Amino acid sequence: MRTIDWRDGRVVIVDQTLLPAELRTLELTSVDDLVDAIARLAVRGAPALGAAGALGVVLAVDQADREGWDDERLARELARVRAARPTAVNLSWGIDRAANRLTQGRQAVLQEALAVLDEDVAANRSIGERGADLLDELLAGTAAATQAIRVHTHCNTGSLATVESGTALGVVRVLHQRRRLGRVYVDETRPLLQGSRLTAWELDRLGIDYRVVVDGAGPTVIARGLVDAVVVGADRVAANGDVVNKVGTYPLALACARAGVPFVVAAPESTIDEATPTGSGVEIETRADAEVLEWSGVRVAPAGARALNLAFDVTPADLVTAIVTEDRAIRPRELAGE
Amino acid sequence: MRTIDWRDGRVVIVDQTLLPAELRTLELTSVDDLVDAIARLAVRGAPALGAAGALGVVLAVDQADREGWDDERLARELARVRAARPTAVNLSWGIDRAANRLTQGRQAVLQEALAVLDEDVAANRSIGERGADLLDELLAGTAAATQAIRVHTHCNTGSLATVESGTALGVVRVLHQRRRLGRVYVDETRPLLQGSRLTAWELDRLGIDYRVVVDGAGPTVIARGLVDAVVVGADRVAANGDVVNKVGTYPLALACARAGVPFVVAAPESTIDEATPTGSGVEIETRADAEVLEWSGVRVAPAGARALNLAFDVTPADLVTAIVTEDRAIRPRELAGE
Repeated sequence: MRTIDWRDGRVVIVDQTLLPAELRTLELTSVDDLVDAIARLAVRGAPALGAAGALGVVLAVDQADREGWDDERLARELARVRAARPTAVNLSWGIDRAANRLTQGRQAVLQEALAVLDEDVAANRSIGERGADLLDELLAGTAAATQAIRVHTHCNTGSLATVESGTALGVVRVLHQRRRLGRVYVDETRPLLQGSRLTAWELDRLGIDYRVVVDGAGPTVIARGLVDAVVVGADRVAANGDVVNKVGTYPLALACARAGVPFVVAAPESTIDEATPTGSGVEIETRADAEVLEWSGVRVAPAGARALNLAFDVTPADLVTAIVTEDRAIRPRELAGE
Repeated sequence: MRTIDWRDGRVVIVDQTLLPAELRTLELTSVDDLVDAIARLAVRGAPALGAAGALGVVLAVDQADREGWDDERLARELARVRAARPTAVNLSWGIDRAANRLTQGRQAVLQEALAVLDEDVAANRSIGERGADLLDELLAGTAAATQAIRVHTHCNTGSLATVESGTALGVVRVLHQRRRLGRVYVDETRPLLQGSRLTAWELDRLGIDYRVVVDGAGPTVIARGLVDAVVVGADRVAANGDVVNKVGTYPLALACARAGVPFVVAAPESTIDEATPTGSGVEIETRADAEVLEWSGVRVAPAGARALNLAFDVTPADLVTAIVTEDRAIRPRELAGE
């Protein structure tokens, strides 16, 4: 099953806000539906957002046809989709891919959008294989070279974050298929718990041995020698190799650098934003205070409390061992001539 | 109001599991009551645990008298109190302080226990003043020297973690009294949210401007230049200056080292454990999976999920700018001759 797909004129997504309690699909028929689903993270994960952006253009074209929008209105509606989440570059990239076919008509737009989905599936398979190969290479000569590889990951980068398979979790999946995988540690990933809700659910279905840890414990798991490599996804990679990813990624990279553990980023080429020189140029989405201060509607902080809810962080390129895409393994430190 | 006190033959504590929703006190009349309160964190915080240990000896002596325990039974009951939480050295220290008076009779034990409480109050005042002075010294020549000092903290080290006033939060309190305090950032401190539940509640009552952040965002708040210093407490300080504190402390220290931000530990002398050469010799408490995988009784992870719930982490001495006690400011890097 694909996490996001096109069926009978509708965008069909797995509603990720209900997992792990319930596996339910949602059918989106309008730009409003899509913007809402993106904003409340019913669909999330950089590659899945690329697919959502591309399919959103088809949705908008169909709605324009039904409701008689002019080109200006269509452009405005696409801008709303683009703005629904500002940090992941894939959303804009997906919209651009499909929107570039607008002059060729609805069928061309749909074909391009479906191609984005198919390419994501293929890219993820390739990332998984390349990432697993790279870990073998990086861990040559260590105990993990002959024993199982213990991986630490953050957030959700699996099937649910992509069209199918996964980026960082795609690497984990391939290691598992090759019988090279040891225990996986996953950060719960506050505030929305994509780790304990979504990644745990995927690991569970794959029959992988795993442990959930609180985000503050991730660096300690690394320092205590419990993991051989950290593998995470990315929402945007700047031209210099700075990696923007779910908040809580940066501390793992700091801990890896200190412990001498490889810190590997797995992401499709569409995540690399050559137009942004460094991570400091990326807008970091700030989300609602309530995500931090409430839990299932129960207030955990005093009534007057305020939060600073940064959704992403920036890991400087010098802390990144490698970025694995469907085409290559980039070593940011080599880029910098170190 | 003291967080922990002795009244009419009972240990009276503020029940910290109910805050911030409700401020209620609990009266403990037996060793069972005390062990339960410590284990479920109704009383917590290294200095408050020192007081709990000392008062626990009085409680045990009175119960021994009521129930006719022999010395062996009394010793066994005190060992249960000691084992209720293994990581904070203060609990054992408090028990030893009072138990050393056992041969002098009940009144001597009670006097010693009450002295532990009074000394904690005095020590905290001194830590607060010394810590605030130290920050002024460390930040001389920076923008914070003339503007307000923005502090980042973790967990709860305030009145609720001590008998009164606080250690790291005692420093914050003195900065506030001196009108030198800017915004305070506090990590929510998963899994039990001592930051968003307890520290936020204390800051709120003090009228201090603050923001709660998820633990994974702490290092980013530091990297983005939003804080001038990190000030945390400690559950145990090894002889070499390694600091054992609530899990999630170590990533802040890593981020401080990279950003050139002072990382200051505020703790009473009773937290310093000269008998333990380095942090690697300290037993790190592992707590129940459910603290991570459930929330107010609601399961957030799949049914079969398991957690690794490390309650503390170790910050190596070389990442610690200074440890402030009631008597001195220790610079671990100078100890090591760097």
